[in-house]
Amino acid sequence: MRAVDIIRKKRDGHALDPVEIEAFVQGATSGSWRDYQLSALLMAIVCRGMNERETAELTASMVRSGTKLDLSDLPGPKIDKHSTGGVGDKVSLILAPLAVACGVVVPMMSGRGLGHSGGTLDKLESIPGFRVRLSEQELRAALKKVGCAMIGQTEEIAPADRVLYALRDVTGTVESIPLITASIMSKKIAEGIAGLVLDVKCGKGAFMKTRAEARRLAESLVRNGESNGVNTEAVITAMDEPLGETIGNALEVEEAISVLRGTSDAQDLIYLSIYLATRMVLLAGLERTPDRANQRVREALSSGAALQTFRQIIRQQGGDPKVTTYPHRLLPNSRHQHWVRASRPGHVTKIHAEKLGRATVLLGAGRNRVKDRIDPAAGAVLFVRSGEKVAEGEALLELHYNRSTRLAEAITLAEEAYTIGDERPLHPRPLLFETVQGPGHVY
Amino acid sequence: MRAVDIIRKKRDGHALDPVEIEAFVQGATSGSWRDYQLSALLMAIVCRGMNERETAELTASMVRSGTKLDLSDLPGPKIDKHSTGGVGDKVSLILAPLAVACGVVVPMMSGRGLGHSGGTLDKLESIPGFRVRLSEQELRAALKKVGCAMIGQTEEIAPADRVLYALRDVTGTVESIPLITASIMSKKIAEGIAGLVLDVKCGKGAFMKTRAEARRLAESLVRNGESNGVNTEAVITAMDEPLGETIGNALEVEEAISVLRGTSDAQDLIYLSIYLATRMVLLAGLERTPDRANQRVREALSSGAALQTFRQIIRQQGGDPKVTTYPHRLLPNSRHQHWVRASRPGHVTKIHAEKLGRATVLLGAGRNRVKDRIDPAAGAVLFVRSGEKVAEGEALLELHYNRSTRLAEAITLAEEAYTIGDERPLHPRPLLFETVQGPGHVY
Repeated sequence: MRAVDIIRKKRDGHALDPVEIEAFVQGATSGSWRDYQLSALLMAIVCRGMNERETAELTASMVRSGTKLDLSDLPGPKIDKHSTGGVGDKVSLILAPLAVACGVVVPMMSGRGLGHSGGTLDKLESIPGFRVRLSEQELRAALKKVGCAMIGQTEEIAPADRVLYALRDVTGTVESIPLITASIMSKKIAEGIAGLVLDVKCGKGAFMKTRAEARRLAESLVRNGESNGVNTEAVITAMDEPLGETIGNALEVEEAISVLRGTSDAQDLIYLSIYLATRMVLLAGLERTPDRANQRVREALSSGAALQTFRQIIRQQGGDPKVTTYPHRLLPNSRHQHWVRASRPGHVTKIHAEKLGRATVLLGAGRNRVKDRIDPAAGAVLFVRSGEKVAEGEALLELHYNRSTRLAEAITLAEEAYTIGDERPLHPRPLLFETVQGPGHVY
Repeated sequence: MRAVDIIRKKRDGHALDPVEIEAFVQGATSGSWRDYQLSALLMAIVCRGMNERETAELTASMVRSGTKLDLSDLPGPKIDKHSTGGVGDKVSLILAPLAVACGVVVPMMSGRGLGHSGGTLDKLESIPGFRVRLSEQELRAALKKVGCAMIGQTEEIAPADRVLYALRDVTGTVESIPLITASIMSKKIAEGIAGLVLDVKCGKGAFMKTRAEARRLAESLVRNGESNGVNTEAVITAMDEPLGETIGNALEVEEAISVLRGTSDAQDLIYLSIYLATRMVLLAGLERTPDRANQRVREALSSGAALQTFRQIIRQQGGDPKVTTYPHRLLPNSRHQHWVRASRPGHVTKIHAEKLGRATVLLGAGRNRVKDRIDPAAGAVLFVRSGEKVAEGEALLELHYNRSTRLAEAITLAEEAYTIGDERPLHPRPLLFETVQGPGHVY
């Protein structure tokens, strides 16, 4: 089967059969397809689409390109969570301990930040000693002992995705529901999980800008999970404004700890973490109704059980658990801070998530290219959030930085991110739009 | 300007501006765009199209990627002809001497055969000693002395096209009107010609299978030529059946000579050669009306002037002009012949050009890959043409070959190419469908 014939078939708008999809994925993995042939087919897929069956086959082929974990010898329901990426999104750091404290087993494989979106791995690595690269044996030991491991994708998981993802980034072929679906789901399915909760971000700071787009992706992800034997649900949530009050790796770990300690005021972050943990408890079959699941999650939070679990996770992966007691002392701190102030009095009507995300990237909190090195201490703390009243000159935001080479640009972006108006916005924007479930769900 | 941003713009269906098109073409020429980025944009162009302005800019950029000949110091109107490729299409070999004998200057750059289509260069090289690679100085000398040079594309002409064409062949991005237009026209415009006659083939043996497709390509080519300052017209002609009575390089040269000598019975070939030469004479401004131009071309043929011109062309490019007197003795002959016979009595209703073309390629007359070597003696002679009555067992076709490794396949294909029915077909299929001209034409 020649690569060019498969490319031509998709180019002409036809559905590919499983053998053709397998040839493409194996060609990417083994290198027998040349990069320029892979990118031509990727672009044809972006332009012509793939139906649900093709997307499921593509995902399955990508899973088969590597090894699939078999965690069936470990007791307990294995459930993971994935977010499509946002600004200030430290939910995973709170959610995993919450779900584990409720009895869920969480083999969580996360990614690194890219562009204005942060990544869970980078955040965890700001904890001194924390190792995100575990061997399969270490992973199993962690799941057995703590019920959780928070790690990076191993070399053996869906290697075809690594090849294709790198190529998509430089060939303008990222924006495709089938390709995004297969990329996310192949890695998750290869984890050997029984259930998956997806947080599909939607808005100015997200990859999906509109509700319609986000719903299409959510539906594609859910159907794909169901086709591949993973109980999947997707929650569409707002990402116009940053989540919580911090952006940046160490700052976000500190905020997550404050939520687990019960000292945070970030209602959006707390609410979403509890909501998603509730869905995981339900998917795991540990409770039968959303109310009871929600109750169980709230108890895990208020009793301090989730905080205790986070300590165990940190210790198990080589980090210093005292970070949960003395975060400010043990996490990296920036040498410099700069306050961004209100240019006029009024009400904050909007805070543009992507602009703030990009401002912190300029300070070193994230990366524009995969190879960029990040500064764990860089970031921002929001003093004022949407809907609040400010006086002229009042501090809105504190930028944290060590490198000042692009500080001026960062300040400009941060200033632009805040919109101050005369009227107080009437309603807070909803955080949670809708939940998309597969046909098998009963609650 | 980043490659990925240009790719994304076209992917999303927007028109590219001249600076973006230039960046793409320069990226292809210099290698600063990677192959996988070039192929991604090529596929986006296939899927999203290009408007007339973009196609003209792409062509102009491809011309600028190399050198454009300046033939203004040579006297006379420079007109070329190009065919989109067919089976048995030896028209260029007849047409060039005809037009030159009428006073047209013909700097003809041709290509080699690929797939079931033949190429003028391969045909010319079956003439002992004939050199198709001339330096610019030799080209100028030939045009000055003989009024014609029949050569291959030089390295300096539109180098971007060579890069892109090679990539299109292996990435399923050949089938695109804007890309085909820019590829053909960039090479022709770089020849420094004033006018161009295009033979757009249409039918089973052609790249364009339908009248509608052929018309779209013809219109695109003509508009493109006009935008780039070349007086262009396109003739849409039938290519369901082979043109003339021979297929294969030396056999076609022999048939072209027989037309120029006035001894051929191939009315389709003679008619089309005269028609296209007439258009060249008109484009050159040497006659004012089609009737007078046609008259002049017929006289050049019947007087033997065109045959004499062909001798001069052959001598000028190192070949032995005696080949026009003793073609059978001086052209390469095959060691073996096989007669394909009628399986039943009746009337020949169809002869499938592509199947016959592929049969001769199997015998070595053409190439499936650019690097394949051809056998100039291989090919086929048609004893019986469409509409004729045959007895069972009557010889339809003579296959000529030296290599017999794929003879059985070739015979099967040749047998399949002939359809014999009970009824004589009512009308011969038209050969010439229509002529597409630019807005500047007055006749």
